[in-house]
Amino acid sequence: MDEFMQAAIDEARQGRQEGGIPIGSVLVRDGKLVSRGRNKRVQEGNAIKHGEMDALMNAGRQRTYRDTVLYTTLMPCFMCAGTIVQFKIPKVIVGEARTFGESKAFLESHGVEVEILDLDECVKMMESFIEEEPELWNEDIMEL
Amino acid sequence: MDEFMQAAIDEARQGRQEGGIPIGSVLVRDGKLVSRGRNKRVQEGNAIKHGEMDALMNAGRQRTYRDTVLYTTLMPCFMCAGTIVQFKIPKVIVGEARTFGESKAFLESHGVEVEILDLDECVKMMESFIEEEPELWNEDIMEL
Repeated sequence: MDEFMQAAIDEARQGRQEGGIPIGSVLVRDGKLVSRGRNKRVQEGNAIKHGEMDALMNAGRQRTYRDTVLYTTLMPCFMCAGTIVQFKIPKVIVGEARTFGESKAFLESHGVEVEILDLDECVKMMESFIEEEPELWNEDIMEL
Repeated sequence: MDEFMQAAIDEARQGRQEGGIPIGSVLVRDGKLVSRGRNKRVQEGNAIKHGEMDALMNAGRQRTYRDTVLYTTLMPCFMCAGTIVQFKIPKVIVGEARTFGESKAFLESHGVEVEILDLDECVKMMESFIEEEPELWNEDIMEL
């Protein structure tokens, strides 16, 4: 397993242990971690704290993101995809896009490279969560 | 002046007084304020705290946004536009779109109604800021 995707998965698992939604993300530059994050909707009562947003918040003010790669365990939603486009992050590496995700075409139309690893570990993590907490999941993707 | 746009402008002006970027936003439901926010990149060293994102963060966990309207002093960037689409906010009322903004077509293609008030007060507020702090503005829109 790629060490950065492993770090994103570790974040996701930590979030689930905290009672939250198991989605994690890390920002990488020059083969080094810049920041890490996880979905904190439950933990902080914060609707904008998706994993990708938390990682970007934890990165503070960066002069540029053009030399970064964002890893995320799940295909980004439109909030996170719009952020990737706005921040001009050139590449996103995604754990899986089977359980969620409709933003690939939007990202690619704005020149973002999207690599989907399609990892069983990520799929199983989300499938278990969605089965256990369907209402929370639907709240997070605004499908209530 | 619409009271909600006035509240968004008040947030923007407060942000500028704090040394920050003068963009404000409020979330409204049933003719009442749900939350208010302003860009806090400078104040909190937080790159994702655009005005709209701050207002949505301050709204906490809402069961739905389908019955809300988001007011913002400036046309949303793609981060904020993607968030509006993801959150299924049906309408955005914008102070001005002259100094910034390329997300209108994206919003409308996802069924979001965009009303641009084109207020001189909002244009002047942004023009003054951009003239005073061009580097900070370019950092905020990731044009460095």
